[in-house]
Amino acid sequence: MSVIKVAILGFGTVGQGVYKTIQSHGEELTAVLGKKVEVAAVLIKNNQKEREISEEVLVTTNFGEILDLPQLDIVVEAIVDKEPTFTFLKKAIKHGCHIITANKEMFAHHGKELIELADENHVSIGFEATVAGGIPVIQTLRELLKINRVDQVQGILNGTSNFILTEMRVKKQSFAQSLLQAQLNGYAEADPTNDVEGYDAFYKTMILSRISFGEEPNWHAVEREGITSITSELIAAAEKFGLRFKHVASLTKAGNQIKASVKPVLVGQEHPFYHVEGVENAVNVHSDIVGRITLQGPGAGMFPTASAVIEDLVYVCQSHPAKRSYTGTPGGNIGQKNEDKKEYWLVQGLTKKYAAPSITWIDQAANEIFIIQTTRKEVDQLAIQQGGLVYYPILGEYETLLKDTALTALL
Amino acid sequence: MSVIKVAILGFGTVGQGVYKTIQSHGEELTAVLGKKVEVAAVLIKNNQKEREISEEVLVTTNFGEILDLPQLDIVVEAIVDKEPTFTFLKKAIKHGCHIITANKEMFAHHGKELIELADENHVSIGFEATVAGGIPVIQTLRELLKINRVDQVQGILNGTSNFILTEMRVKKQSFAQSLLQAQLNGYAEADPTNDVEGYDAFYKTMILSRISFGEEPNWHAVEREGITSITSELIAAAEKFGLRFKHVASLTKAGNQIKASVKPVLVGQEHPFYHVEGVENAVNVHSDIVGRITLQGPGAGMFPTASAVIEDLVYVCQSHPAKRSYTGTPGGNIGQKNEDKKEYWLVQGLTKKYAAPSITWIDQAANEIFIIQTTRKEVDQLAIQQGGLVYYPILGEYETLLKDTALTALL
Repeated sequence: MSVIKVAILGFGTVGQGVYKTIQSHGEELTAVLGKKVEVAAVLIKNNQKEREISEEVLVTTNFGEILDLPQLDIVVEAIVDKEPTFTFLKKAIKHGCHIITANKEMFAHHGKELIELADENHVSIGFEATVAGGIPVIQTLRELLKINRVDQVQGILNGTSNFILTEMRVKKQSFAQSLLQAQLNGYAEADPTNDVEGYDAFYKTMILSRISFGEEPNWHAVEREGITSITSELIAAAEKFGLRFKHVASLTKAGNQIKASVKPVLVGQEHPFYHVEGVENAVNVHSDIVGRITLQGPGAGMFPTASAVIEDLVYVCQSHPAKRSYTGTPGGNIGQKNEDKKEYWLVQGLTKKYAAPSITWIDQAANEIFIIQTTRKEVDQLAIQQGGLVYYPILGEYETLLKDTALTALL
Repeated sequence: MSVIKVAILGFGTVGQGVYKTIQSHGEELTAVLGKKVEVAAVLIKNNQKEREISEEVLVTTNFGEILDLPQLDIVVEAIVDKEPTFTFLKKAIKHGCHIITANKEMFAHHGKELIELADENHVSIGFEATVAGGIPVIQTLRELLKINRVDQVQGILNGTSNFILTEMRVKKQSFAQSLLQAQLNGYAEADPTNDVEGYDAFYKTMILSRISFGEEPNWHAVEREGITSITSELIAAAEKFGLRFKHVASLTKAGNQIKASVKPVLVGQEHPFYHVEGVENAVNVHSDIVGRITLQGPGAGMFPTASAVIEDLVYVCQSHPAKRSYTGTPGGNIGQKNEDKKEYWLVQGLTKKYAAPSITWIDQAANEIFIIQTTRKEVDQLAIQQGGLVYYPILGEYETLLKDTALTALL
């Protein structure tokens, strides 16, 4: 039986998960591919560490040695940084290998170039593991919604942030305490900036934009905000209104414009993200034929991420051209966004005396924490007038929510 | 440019949705397939009715005329009954056409035979529309989870039942009132038996079993129960415990056995189905590498179902062998189910005097409505001893739920 030879770059959590899964699921891989899948090489950084890798596998710190192997079909990349990863993958593609990556930062920056290079070299690229771990969201957009015109994608894409927000609410803890818990559980790095400031979710959002709309918004025009501004006080105030904070990535196509933001928002019980708790991820896709579908599942972890890589391994072997679907369908048009539309906001630091005729006061949760209804423009303006003002949009139809609660009485 | 010629059998809600979508999404279909997709014929039952169909399309009550067309590539079947549909589709396959069906009852009965026939004739079959409407659950199982060994599938597969249960709870209405509302909204037929007695969900469950495990359980061994036994009183009692009734199809692979049931169960807030309301469908797949993922979305309706058919249209054109993945991966083994395991049940009609040492009394919601903890065997035994006893299992870890509620104090 012929053999498919795989190299794994990086032997951290993801690399190890992929290695173990290729061992444990050899039978399934052979059944589907008609060939045996073998790990031929593992690229490591530190050759002093003990690792549980079979003796037949080349374990090396030198990528050149891997490319020199007599046969190499697929390179799985599970490193973190942009470089030297990007350089390695370009070499692998030129060498004729399919590539699979779990590296969102690298792929958000260089995905387009890699796709084009792969296309020139008639190899394929799998990148399911870059977004939402084991949830097959990339493949759903790439392979299952080919005719549907996607016009909106929303996602809880950073499990660490979602875990912290859940802990803060459920245990009535501070951000710092909850971050520490996330670090103790292995969900957050020693330096959590990438997660809690929204960079990780931002990169994933750019990858989702390209797969959904064939292009990305101007990176500098994307609102990116993490969860560090959210206090226990704000969470408690939101809860009084039946609202929860979620860190949500949002992509909307209106005409030829892509509007993107990655920031904390509030959602009510009717929103599918209200119940997405802990390290779970969820992605909500709206398209013109099917309407709204939501995918939810484990967004990170050794095996969920390995699952995405292993399923990609089948995908790239079944000769899917790299470019196919990556450029997206023509894209939907949900109409120009009305900047004058009144939305609902939870604001902190605002007193009644700042009220303008264009603001409707909906309710008060605590001292200086209000729900107001006004335009984006107006609330931005208020924030300029008054330093220290924080404000978060409320997603969905807050009216519906209000009808269902005793709060209505207060209006 | 070459053309793909399609015949639509049946011009009810689904048939019309498919027809309209082929017209509205011609550009996308051409972009993806490199060919123009044209509706060549529509099979109707009653040729007296006015229909909005282009004059170039053959509209006929005679299937033979459709097969006599000079070119025919795909037959989309959107009829309800098993016959003459099955006969038509066999003829279409032998004629060399790919087929796409939305007919769960027919496909549950004859899917295996059609797949085999299609395989012999080198054509492909799409059946995404048979289960969960627009949610791409069949393709997720068929194409995206090829290496994962699925060991459990749970689903809310009948939107009508879910709508009725939601109405009963939210509006505190009777079953009859809620059924009427479902009929007024067009969600339920004049004769609702198929939906409310669980037959519709049963057929979908059998299709899911085949795609997940490559085989079906013995149909006669499957517990099938509809929602007609559920009263407002039971719903109110369940709500006191933080539980909701959901009509859930459940498939579990344990060893070589497939255990299946389609029946009302109770779920707590931690279960992903707790928040699936109204006509929405949801499917929850557990597999060994990725863990648990949930897909949620519109389970029926003109365009959600048309979406499933149109995406299948691309799938069958891209020459996927019919048999591929339909036989499933080797299948997981979550270990023999322990029949002696104590589970939680909501029971009505039981008084304390029937208590056996093997029953733990957890709580009481109303007169003769209790939550108990005992084995399946024991509760079956009780029902034999005492006529009129009704009992529903509580899914998930009820212990966790209890910890979070004031109920704990009562234990």
